[in-house]
Amino acid sequence: MKLISKILDIADSGVLLNKGDARSIGVVEGARLQVKNHATGSTVSALIDTTGTLIEPGTIGLYGLTSRALSVNDGADVEVWEAPKPASIEFIKKKMNNERLNAEETRAIVRDIVNESLSLPELSAYVTANYINGMDMDEVEHLTLAMVETGNQLKFSSRPIVDKHSIGGVPGNKISLLIVPIVAAAGLKIPKTSSRAITGAAGTADLMEVLAPVEFSAEEVQTMTEKVGGVIVWGGSTNIAPADDRIIIVEYPFKIDARGQMLASVMAKKYAVGANLVMIDIPVGRTTKIPDIAEGRKLAREFIELGERLKMRVECAITYGDAPVGHTIGPALEVQEALAVLEGATEPQSLVQKSLSLAGIIFEMAGKAPRDQGYLMAEEILRSGKALEKMRQIIHVQGGDPTVTAESIPLGSHMHVVNAPESGYVVELNNRSLVSLARLAGAPQDHGAGIRLHAKPGERVDRGAPIFTIYADRAWRLKLAVEEGRRLMPVLVEGMLLDRVPTEYRL
Amino acid sequence: MKLISKILDIADSGVLLNKGDARSIGVVEGARLQVKNHATGSTVSALIDTTGTLIEPGTIGLYGLTSRALSVNDGADVEVWEAPKPASIEFIKKKMNNERLNAEETRAIVRDIVNESLSLPELSAYVTANYINGMDMDEVEHLTLAMVETGNQLKFSSRPIVDKHSIGGVPGNKISLLIVPIVAAAGLKIPKTSSRAITGAAGTADLMEVLAPVEFSAEEVQTMTEKVGGVIVWGGSTNIAPADDRIIIVEYPFKIDARGQMLASVMAKKYAVGANLVMIDIPVGRTTKIPDIAEGRKLAREFIELGERLKMRVECAITYGDAPVGHTIGPALEVQEALAVLEGATEPQSLVQKSLSLAGIIFEMAGKAPRDQGYLMAEEILRSGKALEKMRQIIHVQGGDPTVTAESIPLGSHMHVVNAPESGYVVELNNRSLVSLARLAGAPQDHGAGIRLHAKPGERVDRGAPIFTIYADRAWRLKLAVEEGRRLMPVLVEGMLLDRVPTEYRL
Repeated sequence: MKLISKILDIADSGVLLNKGDARSIGVVEGARLQVKNHATGSTVSALIDTTGTLIEPGTIGLYGLTSRALSVNDGADVEVWEAPKPASIEFIKKKMNNERLNAEETRAIVRDIVNESLSLPELSAYVTANYINGMDMDEVEHLTLAMVETGNQLKFSSRPIVDKHSIGGVPGNKISLLIVPIVAAAGLKIPKTSSRAITGAAGTADLMEVLAPVEFSAEEVQTMTEKVGGVIVWGGSTNIAPADDRIIIVEYPFKIDARGQMLASVMAKKYAVGANLVMIDIPVGRTTKIPDIAEGRKLAREFIELGERLKMRVECAITYGDAPVGHTIGPALEVQEALAVLEGATEPQSLVQKSLSLAGIIFEMAGKAPRDQGYLMAEEILRSGKALEKMRQIIHVQGGDPTVTAESIPLGSHMHVVNAPESGYVVELNNRSLVSLARLAGAPQDHGAGIRLHAKPGERVDRGAPIFTIYADRAWRLKLAVEEGRRLMPVLVEGMLLDRVPTEYRL
Repeated sequence: MKLISKILDIADSGVLLNKGDARSIGVVEGARLQVKNHATGSTVSALIDTTGTLIEPGTIGLYGLTSRALSVNDGADVEVWEAPKPASIEFIKKKMNNERLNAEETRAIVRDIVNESLSLPELSAYVTANYINGMDMDEVEHLTLAMVETGNQLKFSSRPIVDKHSIGGVPGNKISLLIVPIVAAAGLKIPKTSSRAITGAAGTADLMEVLAPVEFSAEEVQTMTEKVGGVIVWGGSTNIAPADDRIIIVEYPFKIDARGQMLASVMAKKYAVGANLVMIDIPVGRTTKIPDIAEGRKLAREFIELGERLKMRVECAITYGDAPVGHTIGPALEVQEALAVLEGATEPQSLVQKSLSLAGIIFEMAGKAPRDQGYLMAEEILRSGKALEKMRQIIHVQGGDPTVTAESIPLGSHMHVVNAPESGYVVELNNRSLVSLARLAGAPQDHGAGIRLHAKPGERVDRGAPIFTIYADRAWRLKLAVEEGRRLMPVLVEGMLLDRVPTEYRL
């Protein structure tokens, strides 16, 4: 069918058809249209939206990416017909029918995810089918390799290459800011790609961004790692295992994490940076992704098996996840706390011990330290100032200011101290409420926003003593967080009034 | 967060956020945003698209329906925050976890489908979970009733109300144009809502549109049915069981038909028009939805059980589906063929017999004819001219010209006759190829386009004798169909050369 182009100022790819024309072509919303520029003969395939009113019959709306790919202007003639469905649709259907997929089929699906040939509803069917029908370890291996192949890869000339990953769910988990420099200071290479927070208060990339740029290409990551031994960058700009970025979109509303997909997405990122020694941090607790130790051990075994198949040595640390790591939540606050430890602070214990334990495991895996001596080696490197020196090199190579100190990190200028309403022991920190509060205060976008805890579970506080401080870069953000704090009650002190009707509880 | 509106000329509902702002709010593409008009205080919820370039940070793009619902103009201040997920997300997740849903949970899902609170990827997860995990008959009943409740319903004061439905997949299945007037001529009420073809050559609504308008509200359908006993209208404009329209969008790429959903969607439409006697036509054959008679019987039993639960009497006819019904495919051609039968033609047998059999079953169900006498009663009504008279009343009440005759129906003015390449028996008509050909010629949008078969399976044709004719309203459409006809080979004559390399087979 011949139609007249109308360029629509929408950044996406896609076309908008009049409902009558869609019927005439025999396509529905969500199907694919082949669009040919009559003048040049160039052809693209695009997903279809339909409208009853906006687009006249005989006209076709072209979104930004599609009109540019075709190089057509308003009023140009195009020829359209229904595009063949990508072959991967049949493979998704196979998975829906609970059949196993082979390597080729999985590769076809992942390729179509990455080049956006699959629509989000189609991708959702795939993710749902994986969630319900599960994947065996062969399929997980194929998915991992397909995710690797469809993105960039680093190729280092020497071994070992080390990497670490935290499964997530624990606020304040700033350990990468300590582990990466400690490990690199020992002469190991650790090209750490990390994520930004979507629903959290700060991802590792958000933290590092306080100190230096974090957006680099895969080549730059490799060059910088070769130069100083380690980096801490945002994975999103490296195009490493990019399939995951789209999968997350359809998983997000259900907060599902199909086990096989999670294994594949973590390990694909490690494989793609060339890592052969991988340390996985599995925080266990009621508010994390893994509710108990038995489940944590099971996941650990799966990571290890997948690693063996991929010729990567994997060790897992099952860690405590029911309270924040350290005393701070939010980009600048966390960076300040981590830098202070690099500069010599011996507190907070939860941060120092977790970081040294995990770095120690890496040293033992790499043969840098004998069994059970890794922790001491990591501690020695931290105490000697070598880790601080290495962190400064990393900041410098990424384009930040290497003379930065913990004290110089600017925190939010608006603060509110919350005092204990009763004397007693702190019995609980609610991870989710703490994260909500930090986000309300502006984290992760406002670097200075967040929460500093003055007491942790088991500590005694007196009535009127500060239990936490909220920081914000903007006054109205602080106000929002303070108001909401009354409702969220992120810190529970034994004996504290939990509710009062009508609510008048003074935070 | 406060943002400045930018109205986007897109008919849909939704908002377009800068990726940075989306992060700041803590939302991803596909999540929901609550948007508040600062001036009026009115608030709407909308699904989120994100862009890196089109929308500046601090600005929010509002699509047509959303900007209108908020009554904001370009540059107006709005306040935004992440909208709570609809409760139905948790129920979909329950189904993904293979738990049964109760009536309330199903109702919440269907309500959110209809008011578009669920995004298409979320709906896709629901449909996929239903497909994989299945539904028991309780769940199917709940789904049926939820689909009924979320749309319009007809309330007739008298009983019985009759309805019929064909499961589909057979081209040329114009039987409703005969069954409705025959049944109504006997004094029964049959408010027939029907569909337009999406991938077929002509739905019943496409056929009736050749004779009269088909777009009516539910109230109009009821009034017209009360007046003349029957109507043949397009279901889409009645808002009867509208959930199905959105479900179809996500099922379409996979051509899946989750059994429970199919049962529910058919029976919801019958229930909503108030039908208590329902006749279901189940065409069986390799190219239909039901491959064999055993499968057809199983489906029939499910329809009957669901009917009993809903206090509707259901009978099913398992019919032959491997060849078109009658000799014509395409709107005007099919209407001409059906009208000719109403006017007295005794051919084609496949059409006359199928229509009379099914109308006969309805008469027996309604107690109008004794067992095994329904066919004769239907035949009598047809032969007497009462069915023709009733059809004219139906055409008239819907606003068409009641003096129409078979001969007066305009067919496509461009024709191409395809002759038998060899003498022999017709061994096969390929339903899918015939439909493709009719669509290429312009059906269903071009009413005059379609195919007339001159021979059906088992008939002998001599070399050079016409085997079928392609009709088109437009010359270029005919050319397209003729060219493609060589490749599609919709009619196979025994002894005919099936392929030749290089291809030179003369159609």
